[in-house]
Amino acid sequence: MSALPEIRVGTGVDVHAFDADAKLTLAGLSWPGEPGLSGHSDGDVVCHAIVDALLSAAGLGDIGGLVGVDRAETAGAASTGFVRLALDKLEAEGWRPSNVSVQMIGNRPKFSPRRHEAERVLSELVGAPVSVGATTSDGLGLTGRGEGIAAIATALITR
Amino acid sequence: MSALPEIRVGTGVDVHAFDADAKLTLAGLSWPGEPGLSGHSDGDVVCHAIVDALLSAAGLGDIGGLVGVDRAETAGAASTGFVRLALDKLEAEGWRPSNVSVQMIGNRPKFSPRRHEAERVLSELVGAPVSVGATTSDGLGLTGRGEGIAAIATALITR
Amino acid sequence: MSALPEIRVGTGVDVHAFDADAKLTLAGLSWPGEPGLSGHSDGDVVCHAIVDALLSAAGLGDIGGLVGVDRAETAGAASTGFVRLALDKLEAEGWRPSNVSVQMIGNRPKFSPRRHEAERVLSELVGAPVSVGATTSDGLGLTGRGEGIAAIATALITR
Repeated sequence: MSALPEIRVGTGVDVHAFDADAKLTLAGLSWPGEPGLSGHSDGDVVCHAIVDALLSAAGLGDIGGLVGVDRAETAGAASTGFVRLALDKLEAEGWRPSNVSVQMIGNRPKFSPRRHEAERVLSELVGAPVSVGATTSDGLGLTGRGEGIAAIATALITR
Repeated sequence: MSALPEIRVGTGVDVHAFDADAKLTLAGLSWPGEPGLSGHSDGDVVCHAIVDALLSAAGLGDIGGLVGVDRAETAGAASTGFVRLALDKLEAEGWRPSNVSVQMIGNRPKFSPRRHEAERVLSELVGAPVSVGATTSDGLGLTGRGEGIAAIATALITR
Repeated sequence: MSALPEIRVGTGVDVHAFDADAKLTLAGLSWPGEPGLSGHSDGDVVCHAIVDALLSAAGLGDIGGLVGVDRAETAGAASTGFVRLALDKLEAEGWRPSNVSVQMIGNRPKFSPRRHEAERVLSELVGAPVSVGATTSDGLGLTGRGEGIAAIATALITR
């Protein structure tokens, strides 16, 4: 047996459309007054990308396999719960996250004033540092036209 | 000389348009009855993203430099062969993959029923765990409009 | 205290629109005769993605927090300077880059003839190997329509 820990990387991407009738949950936070995101759950693209990055790093499938996209019991569910489910699956195989880095792409909400708060909530949830950066796509593409928000996460895990 | 192995990360992205007249090859598998992808080779975006992630991690260029995009001998070529070529280049420099994580973005094909099969084929090919997740972009952007498939791969390599 | 170094991964994405009246700076190089990119600084999407990947890996915020997007003193600034600023912040916390991998997505400029030059300049700047691959999006999406250039970077750092 090697004295060095195993280390693996994982990537996850998610996109959700704005839904003005929904409440926005993003990066584990509630954003009163901001247009929400569509989706069977709360539509938190940042959490969804984190889930896919963690599962993919460990070779444990993806969010569709974890929670289903049309199961009644996940309708409106908090995506932070999906992160917990993913972490349980990793832990059962002996994996733990080293860190997760997420880039959010969208015109709104203005993320920077609440970045530290989001990072604190997500880092506590994941049990390892989670960084969330935010950028726009300079008015181009689906995010630039204000149609939705995209997020891409990369996770490093060890055991 | 350090007793610790060198470790590097690499990222690769690819996008191909659907071509209803082509046969679909995706993630190293044939998908009978599904619209194919355009491209000089078989258009397998998952394999192309893997090639770029591996080459980039090792600082060995990109898929354009590896196989050319307009060389007659690669017309219709199996992209799994490009992955083998990339691995040969890595091996010649002493690198070997620790794992590769790929996120596929597209409306179709429905990937989950064949995820395990694809991961088995690609992991055998790469000689290390390869994970492939699949998501949609919620009806938005080029993938949401059903114009093509995108893939993003992240690879971890050591020597 | 563990004898093993801490290791973290970071991801950064950026998109800028073409601006025919601007001069193109991309991947730390000047590209005479090519349409430039819009932006408060020189619009170098490759450098911006690198900055966000480095900062995110270290949990040190993002490029907006680093340089501001509307501060007078950064108007037209060279983005290589932003990379240096980010590296200073990492160094202050004891982090150093292991490597950075960037994938550029766009129809132009034709990148491969100057890939080695760009990688040399950026690797010297970062003090670690920086790889830059280039791809197109097969005529699809914002990059395929020739509206702009996107870049995604992944960085590995240790301390």
